[in-house]
Amino acid sequence: MSKTQYLPSVDQKHRKGFQPLHSPERLLLGPGPSNAHPDVLKALSLPPIGHLDPFYVDLMSEVQQLLRYAWQTDNRLTLPMSGTGSAAMEATIANTVEPGDKVLVCINGYFGNRLADMAGRYQADVRLIEKQWGEAFSLEEIESSLIEHRPAVLAIVHAETSTGVCQPMEGIGDLCHKYDCLLLLDTVTSLGGVPLFIDSWKVDLAYSCSQKGLSCPPGLGPFTMSPRAETKLAERSGKVPNWYLDVSLLNKYWGSDRVYHHTAPVNMNFGMREALRLLAEEGLENAWNRHRTNAEKLWDGLQRIGLELLVPENLRLPTLTTVLIPEGIDGKSFCVHLLNNHGVEVGGGLGSLAGKVWRIGLMGYNSEPQNVERIINLFETELPGFRSSSEASA
Amino acid sequence: MSKTQYLPSVDQKHRKGFQPLHSPERLLLGPGPSNAHPDVLKALSLPPIGHLDPFYVDLMSEVQQLLRYAWQTDNRLTLPMSGTGSAAMEATIANTVEPGDKVLVCINGYFGNRLADMAGRYQADVRLIEKQWGEAFSLEEIESSLIEHRPAVLAIVHAETSTGVCQPMEGIGDLCHKYDCLLLLDTVTSLGGVPLFIDSWKVDLAYSCSQKGLSCPPGLGPFTMSPRAETKLAERSGKVPNWYLDVSLLNKYWGSDRVYHHTAPVNMNFGMREALRLLAEEGLENAWNRHRTNAEKLWDGLQRIGLELLVPENLRLPTLTTVLIPEGIDGKSFCVHLLNNHGVEVGGGLGSLAGKVWRIGLMGYNSEPQNVERIINLFETELPGFRSSSEASA
Repeated sequence: MSKTQYLPSVDQKHRKGFQPLHSPERLLLGPGPSNAHPDVLKALSLPPIGHLDPFYVDLMSEVQQLLRYAWQTDNRLTLPMSGTGSAAMEATIANTVEPGDKVLVCINGYFGNRLADMAGRYQADVRLIEKQWGEAFSLEEIESSLIEHRPAVLAIVHAETSTGVCQPMEGIGDLCHKYDCLLLLDTVTSLGGVPLFIDSWKVDLAYSCSQKGLSCPPGLGPFTMSPRAETKLAERSGKVPNWYLDVSLLNKYWGSDRVYHHTAPVNMNFGMREALRLLAEEGLENAWNRHRTNAEKLWDGLQRIGLELLVPENLRLPTLTTVLIPEGIDGKSFCVHLLNNHGVEVGGGLGSLAGKVWRIGLMGYNSEPQNVERIINLFETELPGFRSSSEASA
Repeated sequence: MSKTQYLPSVDQKHRKGFQPLHSPERLLLGPGPSNAHPDVLKALSLPPIGHLDPFYVDLMSEVQQLLRYAWQTDNRLTLPMSGTGSAAMEATIANTVEPGDKVLVCINGYFGNRLADMAGRYQADVRLIEKQWGEAFSLEEIESSLIEHRPAVLAIVHAETSTGVCQPMEGIGDLCHKYDCLLLLDTVTSLGGVPLFIDSWKVDLAYSCSQKGLSCPPGLGPFTMSPRAETKLAERSGKVPNWYLDVSLLNKYWGSDRVYHHTAPVNMNFGMREALRLLAEEGLENAWNRHRTNAEKLWDGLQRIGLELLVPENLRLPTLTTVLIPEGIDGKSFCVHLLNNHGVEVGGGLGSLAGKVWRIGLMGYNSEPQNVERIINLFETELPGFRSSSEASA
């Protein structure tokens, strides 16, 4: 061991002895993550194999095929990014936006703002259309902004996780073709839970996450890119200014060449494959109907006990419901109470809705009648007592 | 369902019915991933919890503390990036390199080239020192290049996964202080397996992966940043040109504020926490000695059966050994044979060593005497027959 003579001695300061992990039991009815399907968790814990193992290479193709089904697209560049949904969001921009490109972002919630922030980092000329949080955009509003700004990319959120609004998509793709721009769509809270048709809607770039409608833990970001968007990528004047998310490199690994790019998160992809397999087994129409039916039960139940919902019914997301926090209630404390005393997670508001709404998710594996009953029952039995104690202490 | 009347019908083309996943049993003795510890796989399959759940927030602090132990650093900005090791590699550059900054990259293998590629994407003025693959850099070579280029960052690989070289680190940090540049170190194949002292060696930026010395599946990229590197980040003139890897945002989530950035890959962090806990339980000195002892057994055994190693003993990595492929053997076919008939993965060469070496990893959970015996035994019994059949068919 002569070569280690110059080494310092090991500092034990940070060497803490922790117990093996036992996580608490939670029913996750917030904005995500949602509970994972037990079969997905089982797949996640299979022993890893090599990222170039022929078995794994076959699995990659299966994941891609099943993602195309879930998204209703034929795009060859359909794959899970090796990061969370935000990484896939960034991938849509990093690959297609060149410095100076006009990117028109529709902002009616938190995630529109994130898109605008990201586009700015890639030196886009960022233009905004803004609406109240909780509203959707009309075709007229979108068309007049397209005429005004003539952007290279229009970015819009299909399912706004911060507000619970589902953006009507009919006609937007046609407008983007008419005004020659790419359509970039956030489907984080819609994939697997809400009707979604990438090709029929003429969407050029979309991203999602693993931990909501797909019933998988967080960690992968499904990504898809149309041939039109591929052309814009191919015509870039320089390299994509992000190595990890560079689709031209990633496609050499996910495409037929199988050239090493980065070591794939093998176990997360085991889970993703199982999650997508279960969705295909159930069938998209059945999954969408299940989400819709359970959401309607939730809306009825909440309104029956006197609570109001932020979003009008025709724009309401089945996967995520925003409930107005009644006067005299400290919404955050009620969330803490539900988590600590009942093991149920419900989300608070983000951004301009902070302190004003709760966010209740019914996504993927969790969109079941017994969960609807449980959360309505908790609001019905716990909120009144909480209201008086919160008013008494005020 | 009146609002869904305009929806197209679902295309069943990509809806394939696959069987539930059963992965093959593999002993992963390539360059990584390595087999994961069974307790890590168990942790990975625990039901997810929310990324802002107080239980999860405590777990994040535990992961950070244990990473500080594993890396022997007090850096507050020590955290696992929500991507693989390559994402953490990119994070070191994205956060600290501004356009025009000189970045001096030491290239003696595949991953030095990757660092140079990434630095170029962040508009660095990239300068190179190159050596033969399989050699290490001397202090004299580094000092003369520092004098010549006066870079803002010196990037070097501690453990080159493509060659099996362990770069001697004594004195490099002092040189970087003398010439006022940050020291960026790739520790992908050293963390947990090879003596490594971030603070004593005056390293400013380092990254690693989860799937080698830590015995966790791939999917997280440990990252650490010194106060000196933090200062460079704080003094940037604009935003970090990468949203997902922006440490100034990430620190609001991992630091005391706990402000939402992205939804953490909760289950991967369950696994990481368990992996780091097991390393702390064993103790760094014991883990390093175990890797060294088993590597020496491997080297002796391979040389005993007449094989030659690429790297001289004083520079050899205990975690990854490069073996010269003898004349008359198709190295790739032998790897395929080992995988298909014996369930054992051994790596081939990358870049300028493609077709010239095999790469045998003994990392983390897999660094055990019985694995050394198995792989030596396989080379001893299978290679001669393979040699003659390969020569016969040539």
